[in-house]
Amino acid sequence: MGSALVGFGKAIPALEVQNDDLKALVDTNDEWIRTRTGIESRHVAVGESNADLAEQAAREALGWVEGGFAERCLEAGEIDLVVFATITPDTVVPSMAGLLRRRLGLENAIAFDVNAACTGFVYGLTVAEALMAASAPKTPGAAGRNPVRRALVVGAERLTRLTNWADRNTCVLFGDGAGAAVLEWSDERPGILGSYIVNEDDVTNALSCPATYDAPQPFDADGIAPAVADTDAAAAQIADELAVREAIEDGRPRQTIYMNGQKVFKFAAEAMTVAVNQALDRAGIALDEVACIVPHQANERIIKYAAKKLDRPMDLFQLSIAHAGNTSAASLPMALAEAYTAGRIKPGDKVVLVAFGGGFTSGAVVYEA
Amino acid sequence: MGSALVGFGKAIPALEVQNDDLKALVDTNDEWIRTRTGIESRHVAVGESNADLAEQAAREALGWVEGGFAERCLEAGEIDLVVFATITPDTVVPSMAGLLRRRLGLENAIAFDVNAACTGFVYGLTVAEALMAASAPKTPGAAGRNPVRRALVVGAERLTRLTNWADRNTCVLFGDGAGAAVLEWSDERPGILGSYIVNEDDVTNALSCPATYDAPQPFDADGIAPAVADTDAAAAQIADELAVREAIEDGRPRQTIYMNGQKVFKFAAEAMTVAVNQALDRAGIALDEVACIVPHQANERIIKYAAKKLDRPMDLFQLSIAHAGNTSAASLPMALAEAYTAGRIKPGDKVVLVAFGGGFTSGAVVYEA
Repeated sequence: MGSALVGFGKAIPALEVQNDDLKALVDTNDEWIRTRTGIESRHVAVGESNADLAEQAAREALGWVEGGFAERCLEAGEIDLVVFATITPDTVVPSMAGLLRRRLGLENAIAFDVNAACTGFVYGLTVAEALMAASAPKTPGAAGRNPVRRALVVGAERLTRLTNWADRNTCVLFGDGAGAAVLEWSDERPGILGSYIVNEDDVTNALSCPATYDAPQPFDADGIAPAVADTDAAAAQIADELAVREAIEDGRPRQTIYMNGQKVFKFAAEAMTVAVNQALDRAGIALDEVACIVPHQANERIIKYAAKKLDRPMDLFQLSIAHAGNTSAASLPMALAEAYTAGRIKPGDKVVLVAFGGGFTSGAVVYEA
Repeated sequence: MGSALVGFGKAIPALEVQNDDLKALVDTNDEWIRTRTGIESRHVAVGESNADLAEQAAREALGWVEGGFAERCLEAGEIDLVVFATITPDTVVPSMAGLLRRRLGLENAIAFDVNAACTGFVYGLTVAEALMAASAPKTPGAAGRNPVRRALVVGAERLTRLTNWADRNTCVLFGDGAGAAVLEWSDERPGILGSYIVNEDDVTNALSCPATYDAPQPFDADGIAPAVADTDAAAAQIADELAVREAIEDGRPRQTIYMNGQKVFKFAAEAMTVAVNQALDRAGIALDEVACIVPHQANERIIKYAAKKLDRPMDLFQLSIAHAGNTSAASLPMALAEAYTAGRIKPGDKVVLVAFGGGFTSGAVVYEA
């Protein structure tokens, strides 16, 4: 009895940008990017919205279109929940989950977005699993809850909208895409066996991105300001708190990703191995029983480092970064869909999903396919 | 046994803007606003960030400072989860929950944000309750999950950042603020007895707000664009999908709230009564057992309409809109904290929290104080 993963899909934008194409923007080259990150190209959404990508990935996961992997074709009315992980929504209201619900006609679904940065899909999966388990009969507590038998969990990003295309250290890393998975409560299958999510403070501000607003603010501390002016003292304070004011004063756009790659690498490699081991421990599964580990695709070297620390061969890991780059919350479900369509994951296989990201956030989910 | 609500806090910005002050911006007046909405003034965050407001509300709810209502003073290390409901974050990375975790030193907390618009606090409470119940012993399913015994649920907004200050129909409605509540799993108290959340498609786009990004995008459909230009075809498509393109072409800032007040009123009044009745039904509680209903504060007339439909007197409802306006996800927890500090809610009381908002989203939670 548990939440089984039964459908998988992914979508990428039409435009593929090669490493060498980026030479037009920054001082870089294919060899430098490839050897340091494993990235050869990334897809950039020019004509596609986040919702377009998410919709395509969801349709595959629901078995409505070819391209993904779905155990069966689900009816729209069977989906009780949409959890949408993103840091790059097209809309603030409705939530992206609400927008997707409308596009797909998921008339019985509750829908909301979550933000846990690059770990968003793992957090979303964990939240969906908890809502499903909490609504199963015999759950402790007197609460009568929303019944959730089937959930659509999406990770979708247009991360290139938060990319500073003048920063050679970060702009080579990011791409756009979407991934989706369908969870179904099963009385027979164990499904998700264990999950582990954890935050730690990013004390050195190694990875951050402020939010911005474009409506003029006609107020200062005394009330209505005589003229519309930039009076957002709080935004300046947040810039200080995140240590990004200097970058902004250098003329960079405010709402872009600031990253200290070395510090993030150090966090990520450690967080990944901890999360895998902790989730396996909770699931009661040994590492050598695992058929496939599907990690967040931030950098091939992080995955190699984790493989070494876990003392497992690289072919245990799904690698999907070469033509996608880091797509934040979309990266893990995209890689997962690829693992299924490549036939890497068979019924009964024990699978580990693991991610890490800004916040800092990290986590892993162990399930039986 | 269940999730008990044990702490409550709220925060408002220093600047209070009276109805008549808005005459400097749009054609309006105090009498018009007051009779149609119940709003006399709202607070606008000029010097305060969303995080500042959330931090103050959380400190009250945790019993760390005076001003709120806390059954006991909690240790930072006792909080296992922070769920932060907002549509106006200061930061995209870290999540606002992550930023708050760092500010408060909640070293054992997992943390993420949710977006369900004005219903965000009810969704956040429901998700937190599910994570707590799912981690309680004897929950169905084999999954080993993150143990969550205590959760901080925050709703905080600087909604004035999404306000179009040239639109007399909407700019009079919105304000800034934060509210917070602490949940604690109890083996003795029933706590949350029932919850109900629901989405429906906003088919007429009665309430929407696009997202915007400020980084230049050096791509068009063919690849690197010769010059940095606004090539965001997808954003234009979303503007069409939300039916806000005309407003944008009129020169309004893109990322502001578009609202058809009459359509939202119609949705809200119905959604509120349905949610109250459904949540009470799940809780096994009759409406006449309820000591207090704390609703989302969008408009006093919506609350009056719902009171009439539910056939209950207005004094059953906590009314906190007069000096706050509509603060979206913050409004319900702000009103809840006010109900406690005013001594309206006593141990053993049955309380209903109910909200509705963009998306459309709506929902209610019933608990025993």
